[in-house]
Amino acid sequence: MRSEKRPDPTIIEPTDAIIRLSATCVCGSDLWPYRGADPVTEPLTMGHEYAGIVEEVGAAVSTIRPGQFVVGSFFASDNTCEICRAGYQTSCLNREILGTSGAARAERMRVPLADGTLVATPDLPDDDLIPSLLATSDVLGTGWFGAVAAEAGPGKTVAVVGDGAVGLCAVLAAKQLGAQRIIAMSRHESRQQLAGDFGATDIVTERGEDGVARIKDLTCGLGAHSVVEAVGTQEAMLQAIRSTRPGGHVGYVGVLHGVHLAGDELFMSHVHLHGGPAPVRRFLPELIDLVWNRKINPGLVFDLTLPLDQVAEGYRAMDERRAIKALLRP
Amino acid sequence: MRSEKRPDPTIIEPTDAIIRLSATCVCGSDLWPYRGADPVTEPLTMGHEYAGIVEEVGAAVSTIRPGQFVVGSFFASDNTCEICRAGYQTSCLNREILGTSGAARAERMRVPLADGTLVATPDLPDDDLIPSLLATSDVLGTGWFGAVAAEAGPGKTVAVVGDGAVGLCAVLAAKQLGAQRIIAMSRHESRQQLAGDFGATDIVTERGEDGVARIKDLTCGLGAHSVVEAVGTQEAMLQAIRSTRPGGHVGYVGVLHGVHLAGDELFMSHVHLHGGPAPVRRFLPELIDLVWNRKINPGLVFDLTLPLDQVAEGYRAMDERRAIKALLRP
Repeated sequence: MRSEKRPDPTIIEPTDAIIRLSATCVCGSDLWPYRGADPVTEPLTMGHEYAGIVEEVGAAVSTIRPGQFVVGSFFASDNTCEICRAGYQTSCLNREILGTSGAARAERMRVPLADGTLVATPDLPDDDLIPSLLATSDVLGTGWFGAVAAEAGPGKTVAVVGDGAVGLCAVLAAKQLGAQRIIAMSRHESRQQLAGDFGATDIVTERGEDGVARIKDLTCGLGAHSVVEAVGTQEAMLQAIRSTRPGGHVGYVGVLHGVHLAGDELFMSHVHLHGGPAPVRRFLPELIDLVWNRKINPGLVFDLTLPLDQVAEGYRAMDERRAIKALLRP
Repeated sequence: MRSEKRPDPTIIEPTDAIIRLSATCVCGSDLWPYRGADPVTEPLTMGHEYAGIVEEVGAAVSTIRPGQFVVGSFFASDNTCEICRAGYQTSCLNREILGTSGAARAERMRVPLADGTLVATPDLPDDDLIPSLLATSDVLGTGWFGAVAAEAGPGKTVAVVGDGAVGLCAVLAAKQLGAQRIIAMSRHESRQQLAGDFGATDIVTERGEDGVARIKDLTCGLGAHSVVEAVGTQEAMLQAIRSTRPGGHVGYVGVLHGVHLAGDELFMSHVHLHGGPAPVRRFLPELIDLVWNRKINPGLVFDLTLPLDQVAEGYRAMDERRAIKALLRP
């Protein structure tokens, strides 16, 4: 992992915008290829979380204007097709993945389908809001989708498997969505602390079957109503399913790696399963509003800030779990 | 498979009822052990669908009375625990499975937890209503749950994988729930006919990937909003998931056998998955009402009626797909 000089991006399609990044960051999902869990056969540009100021727009862009501060998601989407209108912009019929091709970890980036993809803030933000606005781009939007997919809400007991930035944001989301009880599964003190700040009412340190037993203990033997899976491994997914009561909901947002679900267990579990690549765009207007009005502070997940050219240290710190999430300033 | 003389059941628990069966039948799920797909190591009593007249109740039974005509589900449930109240009576904390232990394919049977399990009709039914009332006990309730789990409703395109009695009842349910378009996947002419009578607007005869492609063709390339899986095999489950649009719902009610779902495909599919043993008890009052008022006629799935002692022929006919479902008269 290194920082290097690359040509500045330019408008290619008339629906493109060029933005100058105010901040970018390292995603937990970037650790999969970093650790070799995803095959990497040639050099990749990486980075798919971004917020910044529009510098230029293509001729067909009508709502996004130069000078605006904008946030977008890791998939560009037209936001007009039937799938987008149903709220699944990450499965947009015209989606384009950013990151490996889009290189959001840079000074400038090209965003396709700018009108559909980008959401502008009401005005230029104060500098201290930028980490939280950047968080809406992926980790908050993803944790939020996990909580929505798990049907977190009033009267519900919500458990969150995974104490990375997404899991912590799922705790924040569950709190905002009105959950009655929020159980964070974490064995790291600094993350337990942040989970509490975000609204967790209980901390469970056990994992696997012991973690499931602990959740059952806390819920009269029934399991939680809603469980968010924010890891992506077989162990975490089974922990999530088994921690959910019959009729309850599992929202899974960890990128699943090597996970296989046995049909007979799923059948008898009686849970609802929903998840996948979070359609962050669906939630961006609401999340930006909450950040703008200082109702939430998801930027607290960034516990390390580095200049962009020290990106390699950001990966190392997250890989070694010294940092929850590294923010990079171009 | 044979019919034999067994002792009459008696009240064991004070919450029991004894009913004299008016009719019973062979379930598609009974074909799994019949065909050897489920291991059978000793003689089993079978049968878990029932409707009949209460002969005797235990001392603690307060709402069910001798002389009533009643229908129940294949799981006895207290209908008062938190899981029952959430509508998942087949995961009741005090559930007892009927069938292999309860022997509903008999002249008389013992039903545990009678107050929670049984639903009485307004009066003694006309004889021609009995097949439809019996159908509510399992196949209709199960197809109905599949359609509800798939969120069939107004404006929705619903596809049904499987043309057995449950799949056909899922078509009927989708129609009742107001679905706009109902695609039955069937290659058997008599079943296609009944699917049409129950409300199917389209028939797809292709299976597997060809079936998926056909569903996509019929839905502008998007897939159906709602897909009911009513078979239980790997092929059928994948056909269901792949026929569903991103953000859509799969309701699976076929008893899953040897099914394994790969996490990465599930993740990218963006579908909702829900299913399991249908909590028929949730739907029984509504379904009995629809039958009683002759709004629906699910009893049409019984295309073979035999005396109880010819049960073996019922199995053979269903195994060879000569019959959709066999009704047995004690």
